Amino acid sequence: MTIVSPPPKAVTLSPDLAARFAAIVGDKHMVTAQQDIAPYLTEERNLYQGYSPLVLRPGSTAEVAAICKLASETRTAIVPQGGNTGLVGGQTPHHGEIVVSLRRLDRIREIDVQSNTMTVEAGVVLATAQQTAADVDRLFPLSLGAEGSCTIGGNLSTNAGGNGALAYGVAREMALGLEVVLADGRVINGLSKLKKDNTGYDLRNLFIGAEGTLGIITAAVLKLFPKPRTVETAFVGLKSPADALKLLTVSQSMASNSLTSFELIARICIEFCVKHGPSIRDPLTGSHPWYVLMEISSPREDARDTIEAILAQAMDEGIIDDAVIAANLDQRKAFWKLREVISPVQKAEGGSIKHDVSVPVAMVPQLIAEANEAVVRLIDGARPFPFGHLGDGNIHYNISQPSGGDQKVFMARWNDVHTVVHGIVARLGGSISAEHGIGVMKREELPHFKDATAIAVMRSLKATLDPLNILNPGKVL
Amino acid sequence: MTIVSPPPKAVTLSPDLAARFAAIVGDKHMVTAQQDIAPYLTEERNLYQGYSPLVLRPGSTAEVAAICKLASETRTAIVPQGGNTGLVGGQTPHHGEIVVSLRRLDRIREIDVQSNTMTVEAGVVLATAQQTAADVDRLFPLSLGAEGSCTIGGNLSTNAGGNGALAYGVAREMALGLEVVLADGRVINGLSKLKKDNTGYDLRNLFIGAEGTLGIITAAVLKLFPKPRTVETAFVGLKSPADALKLLTVSQSMASNSLTSFELIARICIEFCVKHGPSIRDPLTGSHPWYVLMEISSPREDARDTIEAILAQAMDEGIIDDAVIAANLDQRKAFWKLREVISPVQKAEGGSIKHDVSVPVAMVPQLIAEANEAVVRLIDGARPFPFGHLGDGNIHYNISQPSGGDQKVFMARWNDVHTVVHGIVARLGGSISAEHGIGVMKREELPHFKDATAIAVMRSLKATLDPLNILNPGKVL
Repeated sequence: MTIVSPPPKAVTLSPDLAARFAAIVGDKHMVTAQQDIAPYLTEERNLYQGYSPLVLRPGSTAEVAAICKLASETRTAIVPQGGNTGLVGGQTPHHGEIVVSLRRLDRIREIDVQSNTMTVEAGVVLATAQQTAADVDRLFPLSLGAEGSCTIGGNLSTNAGGNGALAYGVAREMALGLEVVLADGRVINGLSKLKKDNTGYDLRNLFIGAEGTLGIITAAVLKLFPKPRTVETAFVGLKSPADALKLLTVSQSMASNSLTSFELIARICIEFCVKHGPSIRDPLTGSHPWYVLMEISSPREDARDTIEAILAQAMDEGIIDDAVIAANLDQRKAFWKLREVISPVQKAEGGSIKHDVSVPVAMVPQLIAEANEAVVRLIDGARPFPFGHLGDGNIHYNISQPSGGDQKVFMARWNDVHTVVHGIVARLGGSISAEHGIGVMKREELPHFKDATAIAVMRSLKATLDPLNILNPGKVL
Repeated sequence: MTIVSPPPKAVTLSPDLAARFAAIVGDKHMVTAQQDIAPYLTEERNLYQGYSPLVLRPGSTAEVAAICKLASETRTAIVPQGGNTGLVGGQTPHHGEIVVSLRRLDRIREIDVQSNTMTVEAGVVLATAQQTAADVDRLFPLSLGAEGSCTIGGNLSTNAGGNGALAYGVAREMALGLEVVLADGRVINGLSKLKKDNTGYDLRNLFIGAEGTLGIITAAVLKLFPKPRTVETAFVGLKSPADALKLLTVSQSMASNSLTSFELIARICIEFCVKHGPSIRDPLTGSHPWYVLMEISSPREDARDTIEAILAQAMDEGIIDDAVIAANLDQRKAFWKLREVISPVQKAEGGSIKHDVSVPVAMVPQLIAEANEAVVRLIDGARPFPFGHLGDGNIHYNISQPSGGDQKVFMARWNDVHTVVHGIVARLGGSISAEHGIGVMKREELPHFKDATAIAVMRSLKATLDPLNILNPGKVL
């Protein structure tokens, strides 16, 4: 890991230039006092500490465009930022860049219930987007831990995944159209509501997942879905990731797209949650080596029948050992609460080296087996802590430090462990960043794991769309 | 429309250069006799007639790469071609280019049932891909009229849509990874099976839908889906597109993603089919102004219950006037046969001016109403003939010539009619090419209907990835 915490350098932005940027957003919406800038410079894991002379909070697409135009003219680097919840340092000004916060672009521009679309600005908080959809009896299915503070612009710029991706896809698949400000201030008005549009190159997907390095997404047309009428959630105990994979196959063959979540959880995760989580109970009476949290969502009254049929068949086939279906909404919430605190509770057991990897779904059992063995061989007593979205082949392969060991000594092995685990991932045809992106954290590693021609093409695209390298420089590439 | 049928020009490819290209594929796989080249130069609607001195039929990605490398070195333009079923002249060598046929790249490289993926080469025929999936109890849902001869490479290069897009998405959404040969012969090895991979810019979607102008897709990893256990198909009679839209909303709220097809058909289409189609019967006893062909696919035994519940509710709400559910497979096939011959039977009534447009789903009734009025005002006696994928907002807005009129006189109005209809489409936030692409047919029109900045960015991307303009020159841009 590249932990970037440079010594606070002299901040160099001429008063004249600052005044020109300020004139765009107005004094009220520029932040210059260091104590007010501070929240834009750190992030939740405290891995990165940036520095910046100025935060701009534009209130319209035109203001974002004017900022980019001036930044280009004066070769001033800027870092676009949404809810500042990214986990790879992509939203942090590591080199004293101006931060352009999109949070004030928070309007829901339109909801079209018949076309099943919602046009929102980049600064709309994900939870607000979800609620807005729910208010018109629709579902916006993107869902992830940070949904109370992350923004749609950040979700799209990082192509967020989360718990709903199994049935509904990642963020990329939920956007029909985009409005994007280019490095030189030109604006692409691509707010299309169309499900089919074959009029030229797909610019939309170029900006989605580009982490703000090719353009700044200012608004998007998002897909809405019918709200499920019945949802059933089960906690299942089983013997191995291989059995979990069999359960996945059975579930998909019987439920298809109604299988909306399928999360794999190792026993150690449950133990940490029960020990350290806020009023978390073990969902099953006995202890099992592995667990699956699965959910069926249906537009009809049949989710219960479906989940019962799946579990009955899996029990018959000897795939699962125990299962409980949430009896009510509170129990369902408790299941998901457990899932959500898995990552945070690791802190109580000391340091955690984290991976956000994906492999072909069929390779997940092999990934976990090989990585567990390799990690323990590397660090005696290390505690592999795997969990994640099995249905997407996306495992958050975390490792807690040896019990009672020295946290700093353990965390100093971050790069060693990553090298080993990412090596296994690469050999299995996987990705070193399934959903969190590259940012600065994995930038140095990327060339070792990605096709060289693909990297070369990425560099060409960056040079084409941001020739002066003013948009989030030093991120991704 | 730009009908490109230049006079046969002197074909100028030096024997020396031809020999160098031939050495790559071997004499056996180069085509030089004009009568053998002929099938590569025309297309099914006979709108375009190209000319070419040479057709190369490479047998491997390495051969395609060598062809591109030599083409770049010698600045020789090439036109990639799959099944030659495109409808906008994108696969035709309009300027005497060398044709590079991908048909010999027809291997299924791998099927991974557990990961639900299939890795296929560009020349695999769509129907073969469908059958290959079916053989392992999976569904590859891309489905369109030309599926017996179109190829996966062409489907991806044109981002094909078709009848399954409502539930499963367009071709773009069915590809997880791509292998692409660039203009200079470099190869991007991007055959990823990953559902989540956030390691940099999304190159995949840049090549999908680019109509072979940015690179040549040589292989792809395609998504497979669980095969539905029950499928039910209904033919519904109703009063208006507005009622069809209401039926769509009811259907989606009750069936969600199990609603796998929703096709709108005007009465005149049924009449032409019954009159001219091969043993086509009117599916309903009475006559209705509008029809919907809808299909429910379920992984359980409940498709029948679902479609009956939808139709019952729609009948209760007065949305539909009559409906029949296919009683058996033969009847289901008959319904779809009717849908498939809608476009071909128009020939029996003379000339047809065709549009492939999309608008936001909610705007379809307005599109049809306004276009019908405008077209008849423009050409007295013109017979609007709208049908298509209402669930995707994608209407094939065709117009048959006045009964008994002069075909040539009518067809000469193609551009006038397009101007009027595309103007309405644009005003409603629509697209002038929903699924067929731009090719040469709509190239001149595109700048009138697409965001100018988007076009400028497209041009930059073309210049970056194909600086010598050797890949399918003159298409799209």
